[in-house]
Amino acid sequence: MSRAAGRAAGSRVVETVPVALGDRSYDILIGSALLPELGVHLGGIVRPGVAAVVTNPTVRGLYGEVVATALAGVGFDPVTIEVPDGEAHKNLASLARIYDGLVAARVERGSLIVALGGGVIGDLAGFAAATFLRGVPFVQVPTTVLAQVDSSVGGKTGVNHPSGKNLIGAFYQPRKVIIDLDTLNTLPARELRAGLAEVVKYGAILSASLFAAIERDLDRLLACDHDALRPVIRECCALKAMVVERDERETDYRAILNFGHTLAHAIESLTGYERYLHGEAVAIGMTFAARLSHRRGLCAAETVERLVRALQAFGLPTEIPPGLDRERIAQVVASDKKVAARNVKFVCLENIGAIRFEAIAADEVAALAVGGDLLGC
Amino acid sequence: MSRAAGRAAGSRVVETVPVALGDRSYDILIGSALLPELGVHLGGIVRPGVAAVVTNPTVRGLYGEVVATALAGVGFDPVTIEVPDGEAHKNLASLARIYDGLVAARVERGSLIVALGGGVIGDLAGFAAATFLRGVPFVQVPTTVLAQVDSSVGGKTGVNHPSGKNLIGAFYQPRKVIIDLDTLNTLPARELRAGLAEVVKYGAILSASLFAAIERDLDRLLACDHDALRPVIRECCALKAMVVERDERETDYRAILNFGHTLAHAIESLTGYERYLHGEAVAIGMTFAARLSHRRGLCAAETVERLVRALQAFGLPTEIPPGLDRERIAQVVASDKKVAARNVKFVCLENIGAIRFEAIAADEVAALAVGGDLLGC
Repeated sequence: MSRAAGRAAGSRVVETVPVALGDRSYDILIGSALLPELGVHLGGIVRPGVAAVVTNPTVRGLYGEVVATALAGVGFDPVTIEVPDGEAHKNLASLARIYDGLVAARVERGSLIVALGGGVIGDLAGFAAATFLRGVPFVQVPTTVLAQVDSSVGGKTGVNHPSGKNLIGAFYQPRKVIIDLDTLNTLPARELRAGLAEVVKYGAILSASLFAAIERDLDRLLACDHDALRPVIRECCALKAMVVERDERETDYRAILNFGHTLAHAIESLTGYERYLHGEAVAIGMTFAARLSHRRGLCAAETVERLVRALQAFGLPTEIPPGLDRERIAQVVASDKKVAARNVKFVCLENIGAIRFEAIAADEVAALAVGGDLLGC
Repeated sequence: MSRAAGRAAGSRVVETVPVALGDRSYDILIGSALLPELGVHLGGIVRPGVAAVVTNPTVRGLYGEVVATALAGVGFDPVTIEVPDGEAHKNLASLARIYDGLVAARVERGSLIVALGGGVIGDLAGFAAATFLRGVPFVQVPTTVLAQVDSSVGGKTGVNHPSGKNLIGAFYQPRKVIIDLDTLNTLPARELRAGLAEVVKYGAILSASLFAAIERDLDRLLACDHDALRPVIRECCALKAMVVERDERETDYRAILNFGHTLAHAIESLTGYERYLHGEAVAIGMTFAARLSHRRGLCAAETVERLVRALQAFGLPTEIPPGLDRERIAQVVASDKKVAARNVKFVCLENIGAIRFEAIAADEVAALAVGGDLLGC
């Protein structure tokens, strides 16, 4: 296990990726040892007062103390609000728990909410920040690869409904995103791999050069080598920023980021958000989308193979689990946010780094998903 | 009972008040017999598809059929979602019920949500519209005076938290507000009076001429005379539009509309949202605010007397109920959205039609509210 090497190799380089959204603009900071100086980076966002840190028991145990100390060091009054870990808890019940905590902490419109954790924490805390007192400033401090490269940037917040993922939510931008690579040193290997699925996604849909860098550095990324991760995470953040700047509220272009997600959401929903991590479901969904694209004559078999090879090198699943109910898949796909008149705006692959949208009926997606005729190229 | 006269007198005048908010601009229509032609007025907002009508059992019984017929007449597929009546139900549980209904109705981002009812329905349906699929177009069809002159305009949506009113919510503008005065013919007298409290508020804080018109037409307004109500409702909507255009997200000026509301929210919260209608609590709160203003030397005794006289002419309460707990009032006031560093931005009266903001400690507000020394001028 070479995580320690990754830590040792983490030189003191802090990179900044700006997200330009007018009066909602903010910076993403990427570097090592950022948590202990968190207070300094949050200076200027709000005047020191109550800082409600939303986190889960695992992350609190690892980083709760250092974050609280850093906040108190610049005059904030840190209060921790804990919600249970895992996608199954990204729901209205956890949200209500956060609201209770914000009331108890006497959070005001000028206070600060800090999302400290992975994608579930970021989505929950962000939605609570968007809706408590009709909006409280918040910052993202993502501690997983998935949250660092994808969910913490761009302002999508929300919770799941039993009928589908992220059906309830808001667009609400953070005031800053602070990515401390050191937090990845404690990330379970399975979560690291799941996060790398979203890294592969950015390469597949937007950047052949990023994809090539991933293929080249597979082993170093898997070993959590900071010097390999930093440029890759920076590039993913820069790509995400570009997409969000072009279409903040997903009127059209931003849907490109949903590559692999239509089926992934259905699989997660139908397996109770417990069997797969989000990134694992996305790996299966991307493979499905690529095969479907190939079947439609949109991309070469070699393109599908490169994608599958990278995912499998990261130890990610690529096959749809057997036994899923076709009718229920169709239902979940049809309740997707991107559906219009029962047609899904499906993200198809044309090449590594290039996609196109296709309108496909929810029923057809479901039929292909369980029909078995997309098992290979 | 002269309601029938009001109905008969309702000539076919439809007035339009524009709300200019850039790409979130919309019109308020005010007139009689608008519900049967609702479909026509909603044309152009979205393409006909699912229209989810959120309402309560009472309003559904009265107007559910005519609204559904009007929507179906222009090609919409109307689906009704019912939530229980009353402020006590403006909570996360009712919201979850609406989400379930929207999922079951297969509402998409291009569908339409119609809020048909009073302020509770408008706030609930509006917040559901703001957050379902991260935003679905919605229209307000207010059926109470309170909703018509105040809550349906301006985009404030939300639900109550056990600790305080409207602590959870979003700014989300409707695409249109359709005020059919005929719906007031079936409004219980108590609710009509409670709505007139907000009418008095607009005169008190912003318009001496509106206040004079209210004083002149007290009896006709109480009798639900449409020809007296129409210009008054139009003027309130125009004043609200002006305020919202100047400060949509309540960074400062919009807080003027909270005249009387700081104490009103505390009284509602501490009486479980069941003893007083919102307008009744606001009448008590405005009287308190005016007396407090006089005590601070900000306004003349005659100003307080004019306000109290108008409220009492409408049969509204003006005295704080005995037995409220001082410490709990202080707590609720301190959890108000407008609090900064435990100071309330309190709206004080300088004259009829003129206010000023004063920073007052939550503890002081509570002490004055239960101290009994503001019982008269």
